[in-house]
Amino acid sequence: MSFRDHIIRCNSYAPERVVPLVAGGERIGLLRRDNAEALRRFPEVFAVADDRVELVAQGDADAVSRAVDRVVDALVAEKHIPKTRSETFDVARRWGAPPLFRLDRGAVPFFGTRAYGVHLNGYRRDGSGLALWVGHRAADKRVAPNKLDNLVAGGIGNGHGLADTLVKEADEEAMIPTDLIARAVPAGAVAYRMETTLGIRDDVLFVYDLEVPDDFVPQNRDGEFSGFALMAAGAALDRIRTSFDFKFNVNLVILDFAVRHGILRPDDPEYLDVATGLHRRLD
Amino acid sequence: MSFRDHIIRCNSYAPERVVPLVAGGERIGLLRRDNAEALRRFPEVFAVADDRVELVAQGDADAVSRAVDRVVDALVAEKHIPKTRSETFDVARRWGAPPLFRLDRGAVPFFGTRAYGVHLNGYRRDGSGLALWVGHRAADKRVAPNKLDNLVAGGIGNGHGLADTLVKEADEEAMIPTDLIARAVPAGAVAYRMETTLGIRDDVLFVYDLEVPDDFVPQNRDGEFSGFALMAAGAALDRIRTSFDFKFNVNLVILDFAVRHGILRPDDPEYLDVATGLHRRLD
Repeated sequence: MSFRDHIIRCNSYAPERVVPLVAGGERIGLLRRDNAEALRRFPEVFAVADDRVELVAQGDADAVSRAVDRVVDALVAEKHIPKTRSETFDVARRWGAPPLFRLDRGAVPFFGTRAYGVHLNGYRRDGSGLALWVGHRAADKRVAPNKLDNLVAGGIGNGHGLADTLVKEADEEAMIPTDLIARAVPAGAVAYRMETTLGIRDDVLFVYDLEVPDDFVPQNRDGEFSGFALMAAGAALDRIRTSFDFKFNVNLVILDFAVRHGILRPDDPEYLDVATGLHRRLD
Repeated sequence: MSFRDHIIRCNSYAPERVVPLVAGGERIGLLRRDNAEALRRFPEVFAVADDRVELVAQGDADAVSRAVDRVVDALVAEKHIPKTRSETFDVARRWGAPPLFRLDRGAVPFFGTRAYGVHLNGYRRDGSGLALWVGHRAADKRVAPNKLDNLVAGGIGNGHGLADTLVKEADEEAMIPTDLIARAVPAGAVAYRMETTLGIRDDVLFVYDLEVPDDFVPQNRDGEFSGFALMAAGAALDRIRTSFDFKFNVNLVILDFAVRHGILRPDDPEYLDVATGLHRRLD
């Protein structure tokens, strides 16, 4: 296997398998055709045509959210969508735009609305190189149980800003003190679009780097991680190149870190595939 | 204007305006339809069909290069291609693959073969921020005269490797000593595809960062720059946002630097457009 395998896996989206979900003439999601069909029973909320699905529920964000929620509840009952997660994501035309409605996180891939997350590369200097703090995901996580993860990672839920989410998750997942997380440096965004069993994940991950002191040892307190390990950046790269041990999207975040810090170097035969494969252009 | 304007300008390629240039069943270039038509007169070198142009010249790289050169000379005489530059670029199926032939640099956009360059962000710490060394391109440069540039930038010519090109250009363009340029850190690749008056530029720029000491002052000796200036990174960003003072592709290289170093921050409304707009996926 290779670095490319992770990039291909996270970009498995095939346009011919989906129709756009539109609101007010603009695309806000991507519905796999079988998922679009399942919405025909709710004509007061969604107008399903052959080449598109339109959100037709009227009213403000609260009213539309309630209408969509009723559909989600019905789809959960029919097992089209897994049990809801009691956490909602804003759905908007673009990052920063006012939300059209709030959607249960578990239903996001069904509708293929864009989801935003924040991932933190926690690292320290280790001799002449860098070492990454890596989290072990708990065995009971619904997504990617037991996989390796960044030091901190989380979705940006409804009503939470980016900085706010980073501080909260850094505290809950790794007990990073406020004065330390304040030193995290934004370093870009990883973006990909993939098909899963549930639908389409259209994800944008805001990436931060944080150099931690040698005496910092992360501790988890929300049960999402079973532990942490310090891994030389080169060893993390080897692990990515040869295994699926990291959560699918974390491979991309660490590859981005490796490119930016000169750990993955231009003499690697996959260098250009990696350097140009981690930032799907938004549309 | 905005950051996006520079990204859009460097990605003006429209697939419907070109046909592929193929060799041995693989695409090696992109010919605008008028350029493809101009090749019909050379059936011993190029087979022109409605939907593709095939390189049919036979022999090793030297023989194919000679055959293509004769075509280039004729096209120069007919003013389809500007006067040749006496510098050749390798044409290969992908970076690192054996070259199929060598092509005069001036003819590269006509055939739309991929060109590789190296750009160096030279910077130093300046109080709490970073300052960039910026070059002023000479008034007699054929491409982008009088525009602002990176500290070092150059195309990767036939027979030159990446590290080799960086060291040579760093010496010629800015008199960066060997022991200093050895500290340059590879930091990724910027990629874009644009239509120009001559054809298609399908460019990949290997990006390096170099922190220079405070007492380093660049000096040009190959006549490509008329001078240098030290510019606070934030001021360079403002200049990019509000002008076309920088060479078209240098805007992208500095935006990439600004994203990676946390100078452009997620609260900028264009952050995601920039973070996902600088690395066109290779195909």
